[in-house]
Amino acid sequence: MAKKSAQVQSVRDIFRVTPGTFEIAGLDPAATPVGPKSKAGAAADMAEVGAELDELQEALYAEGSGGGRRRVLLVLQGLDTSGKGGTIRHVAGQVNPQGLHIASFKKPTRAELRHDFLWRIRRQVPEPGRIGVFDRSHYEDVLVGRVDELVPAAEWRRRYRLINEFEAELAASGVTIAKCFLHISPEKQKERLVARLRNPAKQWKYNPHDIDVRAKFSQYLLAYQDALVKCSTPDAPWYAIPADRKWYRNWAVARVLLETLRDVAPVYPAPSYDPLVELARLQEDDPLR
Amino acid sequence: MAKKSAQVQSVRDIFRVTPGTFEIAGLDPAATPVGPKSKAGAAADMAEVGAELDELQEALYAEGSGGGRRRVLLVLQGLDTSGKGGTIRHVAGQVNPQGLHIASFKKPTRAELRHDFLWRIRRQVPEPGRIGVFDRSHYEDVLVGRVDELVPAAEWRRRYRLINEFEAELAASGVTIAKCFLHISPEKQKERLVARLRNPAKQWKYNPHDIDVRAKFSQYLLAYQDALVKCSTPDAPWYAIPADRKWYRNWAVARVLLETLRDVAPVYPAPSYDPLVELARLQEDDPLR
Repeated sequence: MAKKSAQVQSVRDIFRVTPGTFEIAGLDPAATPVGPKSKAGAAADMAEVGAELDELQEALYAEGSGGGRRRVLLVLQGLDTSGKGGTIRHVAGQVNPQGLHIASFKKPTRAELRHDFLWRIRRQVPEPGRIGVFDRSHYEDVLVGRVDELVPAAEWRRRYRLINEFEAELAASGVTIAKCFLHISPEKQKERLVARLRNPAKQWKYNPHDIDVRAKFSQYLLAYQDALVKCSTPDAPWYAIPADRKWYRNWAVARVLLETLRDVAPVYPAPSYDPLVELARLQEDDPLR
Repeated sequence: MAKKSAQVQSVRDIFRVTPGTFEIAGLDPAATPVGPKSKAGAAADMAEVGAELDELQEALYAEGSGGGRRRVLLVLQGLDTSGKGGTIRHVAGQVNPQGLHIASFKKPTRAELRHDFLWRIRRQVPEPGRIGVFDRSHYEDVLVGRVDELVPAAEWRRRYRLINEFEAELAASGVTIAKCFLHISPEKQKERLVARLRNPAKQWKYNPHDIDVRAKFSQYLLAYQDALVKCSTPDAPWYAIPADRKWYRNWAVARVLLETLRDVAPVYPAPSYDPLVELARLQEDDPLR
């Protein structure tokens, strides 16, 4: 029985950011506070998680095809090399790509900057029935926007409220949101940057600017602390995921997504026709007559 | 040696539609003219194909990130239940979803009908570095458009030329195109429609209109014959894939995509920085100072 309890323990409860008590400085990026303790254990569980994710995604897609408005949005944030791309590959890669909407938010273009900061985000909200995944998001506007002083302090300070209002609006329109902060240590980041630089097939992922960002590691953590605490709401909770171990990070995000989809509990739509009538029509037809 | 030759035999050469000799009526939808003869054999080969597809896709994505213009477009066409969706799931599902752009073309909306028939297609052409997959396409405009007489004959007749010009234009802009016609028999279609109607988790995929379309099976085959022959060009070849066996269909399309990507032969971009200089910078930095 103890084993079963452990299995059904909510991974989201472990990782959820609770305003008032959450301290980013107290998080160990190499921790494995729940679930598998080894890569092999994670792989075994991932196979089951993947199969269930795939089923739930198909039901969600079907529900959307039948006129349902619900969808899911997984937001991924984290410093360079924390594994936003790898998470998409290993977590979102488990479901039918036709049901996914993946959006990557890079440095805003000049056209994007002519609009409010949520404009480009709204355009990428997943359609009903889809699982949307954001690789970076509107949170960049209270992270790099704050650390690099791209806007006055008064501006980024008001954005937390605007973000909460935006996410509440999404929730009200049928979007179930889960936000994962992939927490990596500076030591592991260095290791991964070195690995990128030494591998010709990975060098394209590196940008000399990455070191300038890295120099502001502590400032980013402060900015994350505020973003996570100010914007972890019942409508759109933040989860802080230890990301030094790739297998654990992938497993944890997959579990968070799975629990989120289980809560959504999508249902196959009832047919708008009578299946028995259609079966009879099919038995009569002969397309080669 | 004989075995090796068999392995490297071009699957595309077997399935390519050659104008002048191609006869849709001569194709057996249950045939397995090349490659594995069993589901198990196909699964074994698919694992290898999937790994290579994944590698090539990553290189293509990297090339695009480095400013390259090239991309791939896989067009899927076929009658109901021929498995366009299943092919996307099993073939495109083998690569990182972040590198995919999947577009599904349903009955045109009123807004779409106010434009020329290629307007909505152009909007979904994959960006550089991506693999685009079209679930139905501009070919619907010479298929249902012709069979259901949605436009005058003079209009659909001129569309073959417009399509060829459009695809040549795409090719010139860096898009490598492969088009697969998934060929299913009316008997197998009936079997699959019955299965959909009997399974509550599949009923959402069925529409009573499907039987009306099925009644015109022969007319659709005639329309496909013309579309395939008139629009199989060196820039944008058509491949006719036997689709009665799902495992064979998935294997064949995966192989066609693999050979197409091998021809593209994407290359990782050379770094725009000096990796040695960056490694030295990294060794000096200490973000927690």
